[in-house]
Amino acid sequence: MNQAHVEDLTRFLRFPSVSTDPERRQDVRACAQWLAGKLAAQGLQTRCEETGGHPIVVARNEHRAGRPTVMIYGHYDVQPVDPVALWDSPPFEPRIENGIVFARGAADNKGQILAHVLGVGETLAEKGGLPVNLIFVIEGEEEVGSTHLESFLTAHRDELRCDVVAVSDTGMVAPGVPTLTYGLRGIAAMELKVTGPATDLHSGIFGGAVANPLTVLSRLLASLHDAQGRVAVPGFYEDVAPLADWEREAWRTLPFGDAEIQRLTGVPALHGEAGFTSLERLWARPTAEINGVGGGFQGQGSKTVIPREAFAKLTFRLVPNQDPQKILASVGAFLRAQCPPSVRLEVLDGHCGEPYAADPHSAHGKAAQGALKSTFGRPVALIREGGSIPIVNTFRRVLGVETLLLGLALPDCRAHAPNENFPLENFFAGIRLNRALLEELAACSPQTDSAR
Amino acid sequence: MNQAHVEDLTRFLRFPSVSTDPERRQDVRACAQWLAGKLAAQGLQTRCEETGGHPIVVARNEHRAGRPTVMIYGHYDVQPVDPVALWDSPPFEPRIENGIVFARGAADNKGQILAHVLGVGETLAEKGGLPVNLIFVIEGEEEVGSTHLESFLTAHRDELRCDVVAVSDTGMVAPGVPTLTYGLRGIAAMELKVTGPATDLHSGIFGGAVANPLTVLSRLLASLHDAQGRVAVPGFYEDVAPLADWEREAWRTLPFGDAEIQRLTGVPALHGEAGFTSLERLWARPTAEINGVGGGFQGQGSKTVIPREAFAKLTFRLVPNQDPQKILASVGAFLRAQCPPSVRLEVLDGHCGEPYAADPHSAHGKAAQGALKSTFGRPVALIREGGSIPIVNTFRRVLGVETLLLGLALPDCRAHAPNENFPLENFFAGIRLNRALLEELAACSPQTDSAR
Repeated sequence: MNQAHVEDLTRFLRFPSVSTDPERRQDVRACAQWLAGKLAAQGLQTRCEETGGHPIVVARNEHRAGRPTVMIYGHYDVQPVDPVALWDSPPFEPRIENGIVFARGAADNKGQILAHVLGVGETLAEKGGLPVNLIFVIEGEEEVGSTHLESFLTAHRDELRCDVVAVSDTGMVAPGVPTLTYGLRGIAAMELKVTGPATDLHSGIFGGAVANPLTVLSRLLASLHDAQGRVAVPGFYEDVAPLADWEREAWRTLPFGDAEIQRLTGVPALHGEAGFTSLERLWARPTAEINGVGGGFQGQGSKTVIPREAFAKLTFRLVPNQDPQKILASVGAFLRAQCPPSVRLEVLDGHCGEPYAADPHSAHGKAAQGALKSTFGRPVALIREGGSIPIVNTFRRVLGVETLLLGLALPDCRAHAPNENFPLENFFAGIRLNRALLEELAACSPQTDSAR
Repeated sequence: MNQAHVEDLTRFLRFPSVSTDPERRQDVRACAQWLAGKLAAQGLQTRCEETGGHPIVVARNEHRAGRPTVMIYGHYDVQPVDPVALWDSPPFEPRIENGIVFARGAADNKGQILAHVLGVGETLAEKGGLPVNLIFVIEGEEEVGSTHLESFLTAHRDELRCDVVAVSDTGMVAPGVPTLTYGLRGIAAMELKVTGPATDLHSGIFGGAVANPLTVLSRLLASLHDAQGRVAVPGFYEDVAPLADWEREAWRTLPFGDAEIQRLTGVPALHGEAGFTSLERLWARPTAEINGVGGGFQGQGSKTVIPREAFAKLTFRLVPNQDPQKILASVGAFLRAQCPPSVRLEVLDGHCGEPYAADPHSAHGKAAQGALKSTFGRPVALIREGGSIPIVNTFRRVLGVETLLLGLALPDCRAHAPNENFPLENFFAGIRLNRALLEELAACSPQTDSAR
């Protein structure tokens, strides 16, 4: 174990680079500057790009014509630490126990991005150069919606031209199992507001003669699914790309399935759309989820009111080739058509993100698989994930390239939660993965000439 | 206009006798003592009965054998004043404008009970005695659930034996329209809690493979009604006493109906059980109302969670001859039978109150109608009300007598709300009503000998 690398990691983790907290603004900047210094010390041409928000750290080696250009993307900002009382040790005082480092940001995403930085440093130190043209883009606003990333990419499109992007901010299906994520779900958000009487009414005096907004809302929400767990909005599944046979087959043999999902979630029994396995439901099927509902009396005991209004917050997770705007329009029309004249329904469309899928069997995909396999010495799990990573669509849209998602975090790394952690084993695997990945990608034909 | 009576009213209204507020405990007591002094000054034998909570003011004339005994019940405690900023003048500084007195408690119930006290005082002053045996029971805990009333009635059952109770704490259907309320709905409260995962889950990562407690709850709540607005719980209507023909007929001609209900509530359109008018739905049909629902993210924007739990607060308004406990059991069984194994459902039964109906054409009912008609000079509206007044069942159960509900408050008296008010016209009508009522009741045959 290279002790200097561990010291770099703990130094990196000590910065409380909480991007959402205005009081941490200087800490975020100090973290960016430390990281830029580390990149420069490896021999890369480095700068901190000002954005109006938190800086983006950009670094590159000397680009040469005739070889592929690889962008490695990551982030140095972290989630807030609340609830801090649930941490076993202070979140910004890294603690190493049984080969696992505990600290905010350890698994999301400081451990992984630093592994890439140190991997590049090792190669440069040993060989005096990298096998590819490399660009690091490491932002400080990933946890607050990557506010300035797209405008940065757009403004520097020429400088950032590349053949592929590599990101290690996804998970491994199980310890030791190399994992390539080639698909992500999209999202469409919506808020419903049902308004009835002018003020809260006494449910004894007026109950029975007026519609209760909570009853109407419940009926609308219940209409979203049929009895088999399918989304009942007409046309909802119209554009869904069916699962390929190889995907069904590959997922069936993964060391992650119903038992692990039930254990991780703690539900009494699993539940989902009829006709699909749990992994298929999570990774390849769209959903309609209610994220919040509120209305009427929320306190202890009872209060006999018919509330004047009630709301629900919904998100739809979407899969290729669903269009978020089209889904919002279908759902809105479906709900409006059902709403009785005794209340008013407002349907407020929220943020959207496209679903994503790349071909894991493309040349870049095969290179990633090769690097993962040689790093971990096991066959690679090819998976999709149920969440959304909007930046992959940004890279596709602005730079015209696909993203390789090479997982290094374990299912119990507790990202965004107390006692976030990252095994040092995975940190060192990340360093080896970086070296293997750049070598594998060097063998792909370059599409883009980024040399200047 | 008797100015001394108006001064008594404003004096009574100045006491901030908010029974729920521990800091007002002495004010509540001072109010009881002032009221007891007023009753004693009329020549009644009076005491403040200690209860462990706020005192009950009890007063009686000299009872004589061979004549009926009438209990007049009321309360001197009032609701809190919040939100105080919405009052046009301080709630405990009575303001008279255009013949209307504005103050907390004016219409609920100080104006009405003082009218009864002053009516008795006028009769005693003029005639040296009352035509009936009279007992005043005026409590200070009506707004906090009449905590000690039942134990007081039980402990003093002999002393409080009577033929009938008269209460003026209900409403008039319209200004100037004398109103006798002969029925009230009962209530049964229930809380539902649906629990799924062990903690809130990321709705991208886990959405689709686990049941969402908010979706399950919405489906349970939606199942409470059918598409025609009927309660869909099996057996729910089994014990409902059908409306009598005379009731349907009497309610059809009231100066209160759909237009007034829509104006008072401000709903876009009325809604209710198919096959009934709005007044029938309010007064003679049971309901299932959702008083509150909560779960998941309640703040601004969106948060992509599957919440670990969700709750709903329900109340059922019941009509004769429904049994609250039986209704709770039916609803609980209906909901439990539907709940999928992917979540846990807790059904918590809450407080219950029996429905109430008396015969407005009984001897006492006719006496009340006669008094109302002579006081207001118009035919009497015979109505039920949609709310619940638990004490009427307490009087029936403990004392074995019916209660006459003689309304004096107008629909816009704003009880429990800012700018509560009571027209002085109704206050003086209440004084006349008291005199007429005792005369009419004097003609009924006594069932109970309370003389001692």
